[in-house]
Amino acid sequence: MSCDRPITALSSLPTCPHCHSSVLKGHYDLSGLDRHQWIQTLRQRPPSLWRYQELLPALKPQHRVTLGEGYTPLVPALRLGAAWGANHVYLKDERQNPTGSFKDRQATVALSILKARGVQRLVLASTGNVGIAYAAYGSRAGIATTIFFPQDVPPEKVRETQVYGSTVVQLPKNYDETKVAAAQFAQAEGWFLDQGVKGFAGVESMKTMAFEIAEQLGWRSPDWYIQGVSGGLGPIGVAKGFEELLALGLVDKVPALGLIQTAGCDPLVQAWKAGAAEVTAIDHPKTTILPLATGNPGVSYPILKALLDRHGGAMTTVTDEVAFDTLRRVAGQEGISVEPATAVAIAGTLDLIDQGIIAPHETVIINCSGHTYPVSQAILDRRQLKAN
Amino acid sequence: MSCDRPITALSSLPTCPHCHSSVLKGHYDLSGLDRHQWIQTLRQRPPSLWRYQELLPALKPQHRVTLGEGYTPLVPALRLGAAWGANHVYLKDERQNPTGSFKDRQATVALSILKARGVQRLVLASTGNVGIAYAAYGSRAGIATTIFFPQDVPPEKVRETQVYGSTVVQLPKNYDETKVAAAQFAQAEGWFLDQGVKGFAGVESMKTMAFEIAEQLGWRSPDWYIQGVSGGLGPIGVAKGFEELLALGLVDKVPALGLIQTAGCDPLVQAWKAGAAEVTAIDHPKTTILPLATGNPGVSYPILKALLDRHGGAMTTVTDEVAFDTLRRVAGQEGISVEPATAVAIAGTLDLIDQGIIAPHETVIINCSGHTYPVSQAILDRRQLKAN
Repeated sequence: MSCDRPITALSSLPTCPHCHSSVLKGHYDLSGLDRHQWIQTLRQRPPSLWRYQELLPALKPQHRVTLGEGYTPLVPALRLGAAWGANHVYLKDERQNPTGSFKDRQATVALSILKARGVQRLVLASTGNVGIAYAAYGSRAGIATTIFFPQDVPPEKVRETQVYGSTVVQLPKNYDETKVAAAQFAQAEGWFLDQGVKGFAGVESMKTMAFEIAEQLGWRSPDWYIQGVSGGLGPIGVAKGFEELLALGLVDKVPALGLIQTAGCDPLVQAWKAGAAEVTAIDHPKTTILPLATGNPGVSYPILKALLDRHGGAMTTVTDEVAFDTLRRVAGQEGISVEPATAVAIAGTLDLIDQGIIAPHETVIINCSGHTYPVSQAILDRRQLKAN
Repeated sequence: MSCDRPITALSSLPTCPHCHSSVLKGHYDLSGLDRHQWIQTLRQRPPSLWRYQELLPALKPQHRVTLGEGYTPLVPALRLGAAWGANHVYLKDERQNPTGSFKDRQATVALSILKARGVQRLVLASTGNVGIAYAAYGSRAGIATTIFFPQDVPPEKVRETQVYGSTVVQLPKNYDETKVAAAQFAQAEGWFLDQGVKGFAGVESMKTMAFEIAEQLGWRSPDWYIQGVSGGLGPIGVAKGFEELLALGLVDKVPALGLIQTAGCDPLVQAWKAGAAEVTAIDHPKTTILPLATGNPGVSYPILKALLDRHGGAMTTVTDEVAFDTLRRVAGQEGISVEPATAVAIAGTLDLIDQGIIAPHETVIINCSGHTYPVSQAILDRRQLKAN
């Protein structure tokens, strides 16, 4: 399903030129890297994901499109962790990125590669966060971005995308349909189409979370990495990051992956629980949590299943209602205001603890993927808050 | 006007117990600090403002209320700088803080001190950002917060404050009047009133921006520190930070301060341009940029004037209209979406360059104080953006 042939960053293409697979993987020659010297060198570098440049696509300094993203804090979940009887739960606070979500990682790597390749126009479909991130980095790179949004993207996120001067096309369609429309448009215009998990930059960028977590824990792996998942790009990247550190001898394992979806859109969870080899798409996702409303995760399922088979892990679902309750508890008890997709991940963590799948002594990292800020007032209205 | 007597952090009070001045200043015994060793030690610490703990109020670890705030990136202004003929303009990206603004610095220090002192209830008046920051850190500290907002605070900021479980009191008054109401309420209830620039934590926290800037520039001072100012807390703190580094021999000067206000609310600028010893309050501020709508900056003016007399600097104004134009240019050209108060600072920087007050070769740091995100849709509506 995924192509493992070595390619170099600057020749990266939407498909592998050899086998035409749509999922590309970066390879790095690590043989010349002295791990002891490297971790000393890292300490002299600024706290950005580019500190790991030896394990990122090779780019000339003038092509690096950066806003100081990454190296986000690992914040202990104090009261929630204690309430759960778990003392080693941390939130990787991805809100503290330039546009307020972990998608800035993808954007900095993708736009840097595209700038190096001379790309001038970029098209992508997004449920919000990726669109905002690419709009920001596109503006910094001088690359014109056209963002396709499905119908339910709230005006707050549309506005933020437009602030950067991006062209926004919002369609009366769901996300899966919008992706098709964006692809057709890009092909018709001859513009570059960003493809998320299928693209080279997606996985290569998300793996930097693994590097940071390992460095922040004193060069060791956590027992679990948990994320609310749609296409599954994040955990695929994070697992690759830990695999690279394992190959370097800097950590001793790849963490188990905890993948959480909403009850109204859980194709990955259903396939995994059934032990299926392929995923069955859900035609009409029923969730108000749009970033997780991918009914057809396509190519990512077999990759994720293989990762869970190899390194351990679990998938589970939570309802939208439980997620919103969790959002308010996390804000009120930890001082961290998260997007609903993050609340899904946190609620799912509790579920895995309740099920006895995560043990209380284990070190658990939850991707705190984004802020409450840009979430629609319509979804998270003041009455809901006052009812709390 | 301001009290310089040494006090210890944990005995800090709203007024000096000796002279009853309302502006308190922290003093640190720096004689035991080996500066060469210290800057090596810093590199081993996480990228948070607490890395400078030797120059911050002494607190036991269990009292530190932190979300990994501070040590925000210094992002070069690429195209704007080039357009201005200035190549050393940097944005200190304070958006990359837990609640998206530089007020998180104040909140982490203030709530830590209050937690150490056993304070359980806190009252403050805010135009938005401070309220959100204190609500978040209050929630993490387990301290109940009541936030007084004036009439024009947008629902987006009110909502964000409520997410954290804070009590919000929004009054049909302007900011200066709301401060009075909050003070009366706090006194009547016997709850702790946070006083911003008059408080110990305000100045002590804001000075960490100076430490970070100096470290990020390789232990040297910039030529200018620029900020959009209301009460002037930020630059007072930053100047104190550079003064402490100067005393340690780590930098060779305190930067000139560039203080920018809106044309509709510029009491500091008017007083400074007239060479006045005291400020004259503006009764009816005329600006839609609420964080800068302090008509009566009170005690801060003489402190700021003294700083400009001693270290150099300038004050100027920009109109709201120019600020909003600048907001769109910065987002569209630098990939940085800022709050209007930040746009005021950036537009003011250009004005000081145009006036020849800032020379193109000088190193200029602009406080990129907050995000566009939580700014009202009503102020920054989609029509305005499309007209761009």
